[in-house]
Amino acid sequence: MREIRQPGSYSYVFGRYCEPIATVEPGEVVAIYTEDAFEGRITSESTLPSRVLGEYLNPQTGPIFISGAEPGDTLAVRIHEIEFTRDWAVSCFIPSFGGLTSTKLTPTLQPPLPERVWVYRRQPDGSFSYDPSKFSIQPTPFLGTVGTAPDLEALSALTPFTHGGNMDVPDVRPGNTVYLPVTVPGAYFSTGDCHAAQGEGELCGVALEISARVTLSFDVIKGRKIAWPRIESPEEIMTVGSARPMEDAARIANTELILWLESEYGFDRWDAYQLLTQAGKLYVGNMVDTYYSLVAKVSKRYLGGSVSTAPSS
Amino acid sequence: MREIRQPGSYSYVFGRYCEPIATVEPGEVVAIYTEDAFEGRITSESTLPSRVLGEYLNPQTGPIFISGAEPGDTLAVRIHEIEFTRDWAVSCFIPSFGGLTSTKLTPTLQPPLPERVWVYRRQPDGSFSYDPSKFSIQPTPFLGTVGTAPDLEALSALTPFTHGGNMDVPDVRPGNTVYLPVTVPGAYFSTGDCHAAQGEGELCGVALEISARVTLSFDVIKGRKIAWPRIESPEEIMTVGSARPMEDAARIANTELILWLESEYGFDRWDAYQLLTQAGKLYVGNMVDTYYSLVAKVSKRYLGGSVSTAPSS
Amino acid sequence: MREIRQPGSYSYVFGRYCEPIATVEPGEVVAIYTEDAFEGRITSESTLPSRVLGEYLNPQTGPIFISGAEPGDTLAVRIHEIEFTRDWAVSCFIPSFGGLTSTKLTPTLQPPLPERVWVYRRQPDGSFSYDPSKFSIQPTPFLGTVGTAPDLEALSALTPFTHGGNMDVPDVRPGNTVYLPVTVPGAYFSTGDCHAAQGEGELCGVALEISARVTLSFDVIKGRKIAWPRIESPEEIMTVGSARPMEDAARIANTELILWLESEYGFDRWDAYQLLTQAGKLYVGNMVDTYYSLVAKVSKRYLGGSVSTAPSS
Amino acid sequence: MREIRQPGSYSYVFGRYCEPIATVEPGEVVAIYTEDAFEGRITSESTLPSRVLGEYLNPQTGPIFISGAEPGDTLAVRIHEIEFTRDWAVSCFIPSFGGLTSTKLTPTLQPPLPERVWVYRRQPDGSFSYDPSKFSIQPTPFLGTVGTAPDLEALSALTPFTHGGNMDVPDVRPGNTVYLPVTVPGAYFSTGDCHAAQGEGELCGVALEISARVTLSFDVIKGRKIAWPRIESPEEIMTVGSARPMEDAARIANTELILWLESEYGFDRWDAYQLLTQAGKLYVGNMVDTYYSLVAKVSKRYLGGSVSTAPSS
Repeated sequence: MREIRQPGSYSYVFGRYCEPIATVEPGEVVAIYTEDAFEGRITSESTLPSRVLGEYLNPQTGPIFISGAEPGDTLAVRIHEIEFTRDWAVSCFIPSFGGLTSTKLTPTLQPPLPERVWVYRRQPDGSFSYDPSKFSIQPTPFLGTVGTAPDLEALSALTPFTHGGNMDVPDVRPGNTVYLPVTVPGAYFSTGDCHAAQGEGELCGVALEISARVTLSFDVIKGRKIAWPRIESPEEIMTVGSARPMEDAARIANTELILWLESEYGFDRWDAYQLLTQAGKLYVGNMVDTYYSLVAKVSKRYLGGSVSTAPSS
Repeated sequence: MREIRQPGSYSYVFGRYCEPIATVEPGEVVAIYTEDAFEGRITSESTLPSRVLGEYLNPQTGPIFISGAEPGDTLAVRIHEIEFTRDWAVSCFIPSFGGLTSTKLTPTLQPPLPERVWVYRRQPDGSFSYDPSKFSIQPTPFLGTVGTAPDLEALSALTPFTHGGNMDVPDVRPGNTVYLPVTVPGAYFSTGDCHAAQGEGELCGVALEISARVTLSFDVIKGRKIAWPRIESPEEIMTVGSARPMEDAARIANTELILWLESEYGFDRWDAYQLLTQAGKLYVGNMVDTYYSLVAKVSKRYLGGSVSTAPSS
Repeated sequence: MREIRQPGSYSYVFGRYCEPIATVEPGEVVAIYTEDAFEGRITSESTLPSRVLGEYLNPQTGPIFISGAEPGDTLAVRIHEIEFTRDWAVSCFIPSFGGLTSTKLTPTLQPPLPERVWVYRRQPDGSFSYDPSKFSIQPTPFLGTVGTAPDLEALSALTPFTHGGNMDVPDVRPGNTVYLPVTVPGAYFSTGDCHAAQGEGELCGVALEISARVTLSFDVIKGRKIAWPRIESPEEIMTVGSARPMEDAARIANTELILWLESEYGFDRWDAYQLLTQAGKLYVGNMVDTYYSLVAKVSKRYLGGSVSTAPSS
Repeated sequence: MREIRQPGSYSYVFGRYCEPIATVEPGEVVAIYTEDAFEGRITSESTLPSRVLGEYLNPQTGPIFISGAEPGDTLAVRIHEIEFTRDWAVSCFIPSFGGLTSTKLTPTLQPPLPERVWVYRRQPDGSFSYDPSKFSIQPTPFLGTVGTAPDLEALSALTPFTHGGNMDVPDVRPGNTVYLPVTVPGAYFSTGDCHAAQGEGELCGVALEISARVTLSFDVIKGRKIAWPRIESPEEIMTVGSARPMEDAARIANTELILWLESEYGFDRWDAYQLLTQAGKLYVGNMVDTYYSLVAKVSKRYLGGSVSTAPSS
């Protein structure tokens, strides 16, 4: 299997302005190495973020040019496996960042929360813990960041938006397929920010950050245009909306899910609105990034005899 | 078992200004009859809401005076059973109401969505459907509205806030306990708005509305003051924040859950912040009411040897 | 002129559940005495709010029964004069309250801002200052709170909503007329919370709070139903929307102003939308109350030969 | 005076990835030609936006390299004059765009508003009108868009943020100075989107769009780092916050104004918080762009004997 590592410095934006680091054919399975959100700089409880972090966060491996992907297509990203490349993960409290503090976008005159680093070490049972007498977390790895290039903008790797990006949605995990809009030739796919685990909302803003080897393959769905990221698991279809205020993210995710039910599952619009009202799920991926990400989902059991949207590879 | 029915007209507010309809002792199990959110007025696809609905929606059975409840206590509401009293439920699209339309609080100049009624009839397999060739919903009954009286205000039965009220949170279901603040002598508990089922977010604003017989008992936890509603299931503890914008509801729910972990489960504040970051859940109860309700929760498996917060009855 | 003082304890809600303290005829000019938002309890820099304030804030004088006002009418409140009844005003920083701090509705885990009282004394030139070497404020008195009773709810005197209430809008000042919806017989008008001056937004949440003698008269506009408060000055017409998030307040205020231009000034809807786009004003009354209040306004110079909406008295 | 015109295609982003079109020395007065927001494509009531507009909106003239500007400096943009280069302006209703409609970021299932073009022609008295029997607007020209390049991102010309950009703030007008952060060498200044007039909020999203000749000069304030745009008029100092929800924009603008009062006018933080509470202004620049822009301001009369922040040119 081909292995892809960032050849020089990591990318900190999603955009068409960086040179691709590799070209991948549809259907080819590749292993991509990703650094943690801090580029490995926080290694102990005493390496405070304010002292060791560089100017930018969330290094991305990429962009990767996907052969045959053209504007107006959809890129299907199949996540086969995520393997940690170290036996510890790190979380921390970063001043003026997180869900229960004032931030640069929600400023107040109050003093910041204390800065603090938490190193979670792998335990004999496979869980992660900074103090097993307190609590341990079983790993449920996923990719905090997957995305294509926006057509015009270069967006920070900390931002989730229509192109995917830093959604911090736990359903971006092995076994699932992420669908992303293609707006530049070659799609310019990047990924990074692997989380060993994360709660819904990513409350303090920093999950169990870890480096990883990620096994992926890609398909290009020609001529299928989507406006926002979608996810498919064996049991569910899901859409992700990223916006502020949070209700706008909820509106986007649900609107997109209705459009999906209409366009590919034969639903009438109002039947779809009813179905989601009575059987939809709606959870918060992150409440901390530059835009909040919400996930709307519905079980495939309600989708009748409809065929999967997944193209045969 | 004592049965409680509304003796005259239903209550459409939560407040201390109505006369209690019954007094219940802590520990006593009672059956309370509730009407649907439309007071039974929408009975077919042709009875349009704009023609048949009265001035107020969401009739409440109550208030019920709980013996011994005093301001500063917490009322524990144990939900034993919810039995439907009819074999159909109703949903509808009400003009300028719902999650994917402009509303009175989010007005636009656009024309409203079409008004429409959906009657879901009970199917032989127990599910509810308006057209079994489309989809059927298995019942997962819960109480859309449970609440005490605010100390000063009288709040519409359509509003969720610190007192509980119209939270539309599916975890308010049989087997679970809801904790509500007591701010007036006797607590003045009311309930209604039973849903045969509802998706997270209650997208169009109207779940599977149904009338029910609800079996409850109450405990008064003396001297335990809470600021917002809490829920406990056999597996999880949960808090509900109701506010706008939605991120404020998320902040409230998570802050309250941290305070709960601190005060009753021996957690240090920053450990609790870490635990919720890595293992918390956060879903949208409703994105349609006067305030949005979000539920933060965490599995009891992380709470160590701590005893349940439930008092012995 | 008849003088109206609160006969017993002040009212802390807007609602139909209190007994009127007086009945006033349309056209009658009355003088109403109002207490400051702290009921006069904060009298020096050393009387900290947390030590001296009671359970409720913002005492209202009222309710006053307006003869002939019926649900579906509009109450026109003409503000003739505001005279201070003392020579000092008070502002303060109240913990977890204000525009640049976390609050009960926008909680964080940060420590609160320092509590602090500012006593502004009247200066020889008529301005108010706590330290003339720093800055002095010329008085521009207005009523922070004017409102009628909601039909069903009893809303805290800290809340602005469809009934008016605690809007904290500086245009509620002498020379202007405030229009309020009537939803209960007699309207149940209350007022209070006089401000010697206030910036737009009322940033820390506490303006120059002062007690006052307020001269008002009322007219009842029969059969004219409005949904939200309106204000008319000699030069402008204005609407007030109170909601969260703040963009909803902006949507409400502008929608109502378009409806006003349509219904009373002969504007086509799309002409009105154009006029406000090119010539409307939009400022923040408060960014601190339970709902934020925004004021949309347009100069009467654009309203052609249209007659004033003010009925002859 | 040197005249600067876009040599080839216009720029539709603010970013470091475009080549500068000119280099300007501090103190040099230049005339810059700007196109309207539609690049002149909407010329009559019958040229509907959906038929004639290209992929991107809001063409910018630039980037212009400012000699000597380095990251960490502030760019002072002095607006000397705005002259219209044609005698008509255009506004329109664009589907799913504007303040009183659902949009791509606030989607609903409702049908869009009607598409419509309004051509305002210059009248003999100098005002603009599409029908003088309805209303005419006196010109108050300003620049909808002024900005530098963000350090890392390339942001759409439709977006206002820390770099300035599409703020749509009427105080960006002749006689005033705009201060922008410099984050790349040469600042990479761009401007465009001249408005013959605009109401606060820019309600329908499209002001009186017009092409113009703009006379500007620049100063570089070395080593003065600002986080968000600031504006200075002869009478006031102002800050602009751009965010969603709107209350976050209000928090940013007011926080920045307090920081300005602290750092350059000798104010203690709490005195500044008091001053803005009692005497600040706060209006909505736009309620329609990707972020909403709010302007906080305070009169220089409160700033004592402090010298102007404007460097001598």
